[in-house]
Amino acid sequence: MTLHDVSAEQAAREEDLIARVQRSFDSCQDPRLKELMQAIVKHLHAFLRDVRLTEEEWRKGIEFLTAVGHLTDDKRQEFILLSDTLGASMQTIAINNEAYGDATEATVVGPFFVEDSPRIEPGEDMSFGAAGEPCWVEGTVSDADGNPIAGAKIEVWEADEDGFYDVQYDDDRVTARAHLFTQADGGYRFWGVTPTPYPIPHDGPVGRMLASTGRSPMRASHLHFMVEAPECRTLVTHIFVRGDELLDSDTVFGVKESLVKDFDQHPAGTPTPDGRVIDGTWTQVRFDIVLAPADGRG
Amino acid sequence: MTLHDVSAEQAAREEDLIARVQRSFDSCQDPRLKELMQAIVKHLHAFLRDVRLTEEEWRKGIEFLTAVGHLTDDKRQEFILLSDTLGASMQTIAINNEAYGDATEATVVGPFFVEDSPRIEPGEDMSFGAAGEPCWVEGTVSDADGNPIAGAKIEVWEADEDGFYDVQYDDDRVTARAHLFTQADGGYRFWGVTPTPYPIPHDGPVGRMLASTGRSPMRASHLHFMVEAPECRTLVTHIFVRGDELLDSDTVFGVKESLVKDFDQHPAGTPTPDGRVIDGTWTQVRFDIVLAPADGRG
Ligand SMILES: [Fe+2]
Ligand SMILES: [Fe+2]
Repeated sequence: MTLHDVSAEQAAREEDLIARVQRSFDSCQDPRLKELMQAIVKHLHAFLRDVRLTEEEWRKGIEFLTAVGHLTDDKRQEFILLSDTLGASMQTIAINNEAYGDATEATVVGPFFVEDSPRIEPGEDMSFGAAGEPCWVEGTVSDADGNPIAGAKIEVWEADEDGFYDVQYDDDRVTARAHLFTQADGGYRFWGVTPTPYPIPHDGPVGRMLASTGRSPMRASHLHFMVEAPECRTLVTHIFVRGDELLDSDTVFGVKESLVKDFDQHPAGTPTPDGRVIDGTWTQVRFDIVLAPADGRG
Repeated sequence: MTLHDVSAEQAAREEDLIARVQRSFDSCQDPRLKELMQAIVKHLHAFLRDVRLTEEEWRKGIEFLTAVGHLTDDKRQEFILLSDTLGASMQTIAINNEAYGDATEATVVGPFFVEDSPRIEPGEDMSFGAAGEPCWVEGTVSDADGNPIAGAKIEVWEADEDGFYDVQYDDDRVTARAHLFTQADGGYRFWGVTPTPYPIPHDGPVGRMLASTGRSPMRASHLHFMVEAPECRTLVTHIFVRGDELLDSDTVFGVKESLVKDFDQHPAGTPTPDGRVIDGTWTQVRFDIVLAPADGRG
């Protein structure tokens, strides 16, 4: 059944209700809050009318949101997972990080960023013992005019080869996360581990939504970055691994072609860029970062 | 800022993201679930783009939903209150109870209906001691062709004069709720109390939303009905009190003009329809109910 099937009287009743709900916010003193509430009403009611939601479906929706709410606590944020898996997080990021020349694209922050990461010096290892194939990461940070930025702060964090972040273990380990600063020439370099795929937490209602709609809970392999410099728009992004078969089905829609990088693998025994010899293979990736100005619009 | 202000490149990125999220549901085996999920994505992203939601507003939205989830338990359903105060409950009811000839209009069920109410016989008192001015309620139940329906089941429930339903008290009282059946001529009659206004529970996030947008938490005075008969569409509705100053600002948008009734007040000592003399005033209301057929469309 579509909207076209309803009688004029029925359509008038539905539209009158929307007008009444809109008007209830007319005396809101905060103009932005009023705009947001009236837009929520507009799009929520458009959805209900568009699909002709049944009362049973409405009840299931209430039950779903209730389950999402009950699973959410200080450690598990099921509403963010819901926003992520509906692409709403990524769309909000797109809206707030407008295309600006060659500026590096942003992507989702995800639930695993932690404040006060350890500081490392250029060339040091941010894995702190996290399991995984060693990965040499290097690049530069520059502004939109191509000028290198010295002293830019780079936060990096990633999962280990078992697909877990340090905070997902029961102990208090702090691994595979650190911050460092660019050098005078805007350059940075550090050791990490080669990113591997992992599922988002999928033992809750969002996981059930994914399963019942035939979607995978897997995220494409990635390494998180957050880059800050004065007068620049803070960049929250990842780099992805070219060739990863999950690039087209990342469950939070975080992949952008410009963020897919070559992770070149070197055989065991090949000397590393910092002149070491490692047992086993290692990879190497270059990621040159361009920051938009703080007030940068497309 | 409006959508018209964004660059073509920016608009293309936002639209491409929506298309990717839509496609992620393409392999859903349940066609209705697929339709619902793709419609949610469509309208959710339209909202985000329409208001150009900021990342800070997104975070506040997540915090709001988290608070709604944490307050919700077996006794308090804050998600239903949210749906009610955004008019979504009423819209769902409108969609599923299409205008059908003279059939009585439906309205929200609210959170206070309880299964297994006590049965009363015609003319008995459903208040069971609830505080309030006595109110004589009478009417008929008929089908859309005007034929009286004998044996229709009528559930009625209401707040006491302090604005509370029995289930809102800490004891196990069962008051101001009952069910009865229509007689051979389709008629029904019972004693209750004259409805008075009450606020929805407003000490939580939904109450804060109402306060911060300048809205009242009050519901217009009402008496709840649920009417069932074979081959008829079950009717969930209220009657409202003509003259109540809250009729235009009912916080869940439940009022419909056709449901506003005259509650005629009689002076103390006036004999009642069932031949009694009551200490104090009492009121009297007539509510003739017309049920649509079970498959009735507008
Ligand atoms: Fe991640
Ligand atoms: Fe009520």
